[in-house]
Amino acid sequence: MENEKLSHKRHTLAHLLAQAVLEHYPSALPTLGPAVENGFYYDFDFGAEKLTDEDLKKIQKSMKKNLNKWTEFSHRVVSAQEAKDFYKNNPYKLELIEEIANKGEDITFYSCGGFEDLCRGGHSENPSKEISGDAFKLSHIAGAYWRGDEKNKMLTRIYGVAFETAEDLKNYEDFLAEAKKRDHRKIGAELDLFTFSDLVGPGLPLFTPKGTLVRDLVIEKISKIQKKFGYQKVTIPHITKADLYKTSGHYEKYGEDLFKVKGRGETEFCIKPMNCPHHTQIYASQMRSYKDLPLRYVETTTVYRDEQAGELMGLSRVRAISQDDGHIFCTPEQVEEEIKNIIYIIKEFYNSLGMLQDGRYWVSLSVRDPQNLDKYIGDENIWNTAEKTLEEICKNEGLNYKRVEGEAAFYGPKIDFQFKDAIGREWQLGTAQLDFNMPKRFGLEYTDKDGQKKTPVMIHRAIAGSLERFLSVAIEHFAGAFPVWMSPVQVAIVPVNAEAHGDYARQVYEKLLEADVRAELYAENESLGKRVRQIKTQKIPFTLVIGDKEKDSDKLTAEGRNEEKHENLSIEEIVKLIKS
Amino acid sequence: MENEKLSHKRHTLAHLLAQAVLEHYPSALPTLGPAVENGFYYDFDFGAEKLTDEDLKKIQKSMKKNLNKWTEFSHRVVSAQEAKDFYKNNPYKLELIEEIANKGEDITFYSCGGFEDLCRGGHSENPSKEISGDAFKLSHIAGAYWRGDEKNKMLTRIYGVAFETAEDLKNYEDFLAEAKKRDHRKIGAELDLFTFSDLVGPGLPLFTPKGTLVRDLVIEKISKIQKKFGYQKVTIPHITKADLYKTSGHYEKYGEDLFKVKGRGETEFCIKPMNCPHHTQIYASQMRSYKDLPLRYVETTTVYRDEQAGELMGLSRVRAISQDDGHIFCTPEQVEEEIKNIIYIIKEFYNSLGMLQDGRYWVSLSVRDPQNLDKYIGDENIWNTAEKTLEEICKNEGLNYKRVEGEAAFYGPKIDFQFKDAIGREWQLGTAQLDFNMPKRFGLEYTDKDGQKKTPVMIHRAIAGSLERFLSVAIEHFAGAFPVWMSPVQVAIVPVNAEAHGDYARQVYEKLLEADVRAELYAENESLGKRVRQIKTQKIPFTLVIGDKEKDSDKLTAEGRNEEKHENLSIEEIVKLIKS
Repeated sequence: MENEKLSHKRHTLAHLLAQAVLEHYPSALPTLGPAVENGFYYDFDFGAEKLTDEDLKKIQKSMKKNLNKWTEFSHRVVSAQEAKDFYKNNPYKLELIEEIANKGEDITFYSCGGFEDLCRGGHSENPSKEISGDAFKLSHIAGAYWRGDEKNKMLTRIYGVAFETAEDLKNYEDFLAEAKKRDHRKIGAELDLFTFSDLVGPGLPLFTPKGTLVRDLVIEKISKIQKKFGYQKVTIPHITKADLYKTSGHYEKYGEDLFKVKGRGETEFCIKPMNCPHHTQIYASQMRSYKDLPLRYVETTTVYRDEQAGELMGLSRVRAISQDDGHIFCTPEQVEEEIKNIIYIIKEFYNSLGMLQDGRYWVSLSVRDPQNLDKYIGDENIWNTAEKTLEEICKNEGLNYKRVEGEAAFYGPKIDFQFKDAIGREWQLGTAQLDFNMPKRFGLEYTDKDGQKKTPVMIHRAIAGSLERFLSVAIEHFAGAFPVWMSPVQVAIVPVNAEAHGDYARQVYEKLLEADVRAELYAENESLGKRVRQIKTQKIPFTLVIGDKEKDSDKLTAEGRNEEKHENLSIEEIVKLIKS
Repeated sequence: MENEKLSHKRHTLAHLLAQAVLEHYPSALPTLGPAVENGFYYDFDFGAEKLTDEDLKKIQKSMKKNLNKWTEFSHRVVSAQEAKDFYKNNPYKLELIEEIANKGEDITFYSCGGFEDLCRGGHSENPSKEISGDAFKLSHIAGAYWRGDEKNKMLTRIYGVAFETAEDLKNYEDFLAEAKKRDHRKIGAELDLFTFSDLVGPGLPLFTPKGTLVRDLVIEKISKIQKKFGYQKVTIPHITKADLYKTSGHYEKYGEDLFKVKGRGETEFCIKPMNCPHHTQIYASQMRSYKDLPLRYVETTTVYRDEQAGELMGLSRVRAISQDDGHIFCTPEQVEEEIKNIIYIIKEFYNSLGMLQDGRYWVSLSVRDPQNLDKYIGDENIWNTAEKTLEEICKNEGLNYKRVEGEAAFYGPKIDFQFKDAIGREWQLGTAQLDFNMPKRFGLEYTDKDGQKKTPVMIHRAIAGSLERFLSVAIEHFAGAFPVWMSPVQVAIVPVNAEAHGDYARQVYEKLLEADVRAELYAENESLGKRVRQIKTQKIPFTLVIGDKEKDSDKLTAEGRNEEKHENLSIEEIVKLIKS
């Protein structure tokens, strides 16, 4: 297997790294060094020593030199005592040896190029031939607790990247550089979209006026697209008695991710980690007839999940997750129509962002594991129909879809839109999930045509999904240059000279505001060059530079952010250009 | 003092009640019986006995009979021992006697009409002459824990209402009857605006589609009115590290009202009970110059406060409070303009509801206590200017205002709009408060013209205030008959006969929807009368009954909810009527 081969190379490089480190730092204590995605690492206890980037270069140089001598791996099984003697000054290896011995497994030492290490195996057979010296690099240093436990000592982790070829490595480095340029935390700050506060805490973004505007524009766009399908907004509180989640089953499922709330009394409250159980309670507040269905509740609201502090990152991984959530309660016969409508909304929305072209997306259709039909709840016939219906819709809608067996939730099948961004990373965005379980758990009912009480089907859907994650993806995909409709500022107006052209520029500005164009006036007394650079950083779609010519002719030139020019336009034509 | 006299009467009636109860239930144990607003109560331990409304009548009859004999109160000081002997079988009175004795106070027994009770005094001198037998009534029974502590035994509280005259009593009963008719919990259910769920918990309303629509219409209206003043929406999370409130000082101030949040780690989080501290963090995310000010952040967002379970009531008193909150950061010189704008917004908004006419409101201007100037923080000059400015604005705007000395917060003066509803109850609605404190606590700064770092002034403002309370007030004030712009359904369309007029009715319905009128089609196969009654309950502003005449002439009659008729109208005229 190609992947296994590459993984063996990376593991081998971890050994090579340990050898080089010990050459330069004989008293460093090696601990563990596995292969990981894109490379490898090795954790060392360097005592008081702090490594610099220069040190990394030095170590890397030694690795490349030593690689020539790494011609063959050999290994031997040793007794626990022998192993302990070998590592008598290294408490980390001693701990590992003790564990292996306790499990009754063989203790093996692998050696190559004169370097021996406690190891389970899985290396390149002839590293000097198989590994290309210019296909790997030491990349950076990080702190890491011994065995990932923050109660243990902090070790020094040296990371390396490694690929089959120098070209692959170069591609990866280019990808990293491009990802860094597009980092939504950096662009988010440049565009002043959101901020974090130490007093509020990590994973809890505060959205500035511009960031809030972008969020609202997204919600408004979705809301316009879905208007004709009869969705109704509802409003729920962010907390609830724990009873709600004990009934839904989420209390156990979410476990430590659930934020528990303590008030003055004994009642146990939680912050909602999802909205569906609350929405069932609005459904349940009235007797429902088949004539009332489908009921389609939507709400943009924030759920809270206590993600591990180490996992939090910008808007991609947060504790406050704002969802454009929707729940449809319908009869089994209505499922097809509702799913079709959801797909229509998802397609319209992502098309408005230009995000569905060129094989940029695929749809995963998650169905039951045919070997394990027992583990799913709900009527067999409804499942069969639902899976078939979903697949037929995928076909009829011409979606690029893939059946994924065994990926359905135990309560129903689903479809997820998977999106590949401008630099090839895949993100899950819109989703529609059937649920035969929750309506039962909450005893939801409707009276059918025949007078019988029946349980409605519930469909969970989200179009943008988490607004935070959607924004992080959109910022990185567009590198901050949002589509015009989604840009917080659509046009910048720049008088060449504040005195000579300021008044006319302000007139233009006000006319654009009146026409509901989001304009900003760059009339500060700074040089024209500096203002234009600011506008570039802001990724504003259009710039109107206003000088004598524009003022005298009342005709403007709109320069696009990719330097395309739209010349000789009236204000009305500018408005049309921006709105088109 | 008139009020004291009435209070003495009410207290006397509590004694009279106890006498009558003991006549009928000799083994009942009297505990405490004070005068309260509108009347009095007395708590008894009836043992296993349960009282009915019939019992109340019987007791009330005895009270009226006994009143004739209540001609003079006398009292005597008794020793603790004597008192204890008297109440030897009543552990409640024994507890009270013990307490009075421990404090070293006199133990007094008051008696009248042959009934003696442990009491501190404060009665009518000659009850039979002073108290009118038809100016009081026993009203209802409730459970009440001994001394209000839920660890104690539950007693039976008998409530009475009492006034100076039979006419006052009648007025009060009429008021109660009217208040009951207007109860927003009842009307809210009839209009299907909100609901509560036992699984979610008390004080945590769930807003249905119609309730959410009304909320959104209110927010939208305010948003339109304030658009020209440069407010910018921001978005904050609902939780924060406790550190934020330790810095702001709210951690201590809110005490038990603060919901504490526990995640997987050690960090202490809280749910926000107010938004201002979060908003300061958006201000603080950038360097600010005088040129950036004022910054006006607005957000409709929900805060959480753990009100006592016993205090919760419908939407009037909730644990989830959605505020149309705003915070302005400005220079001292900008305060006047900003306050003027806020008053303009408040007036425009409440005028659009017809809620500011006819002495229906007054403005309380809360200033410092001139005897206690030390207890206020902030520069003396800024205070003087601010108070003067607020008062001048009140004058210039022709507001019906009253200076209330000593009511300013320690951090700044404020104005509050006080609104008297259709049945005379007063509610505080819009507010603007100056704050010289919080910006300091958070170290907020701006660079002034002179290059100096200065602290901005913060203005807290709310127009509707709490949306929940605003809705409860609006529902009760309008008895559910909202102004047309705020009605979830503006027009009901009722075909006389579904078969003959259904198609034409649907055409009318669709044309109205297209014109952005909120129409509802009442085409169910129920009798015309039943449908019209449903529409009346829903308080829908206009009804279009559609029969042969309408269908043939293409001219419609809109009947208003007060039965006023607008005849012979085209659809366009109907649209105009509804939008005007």
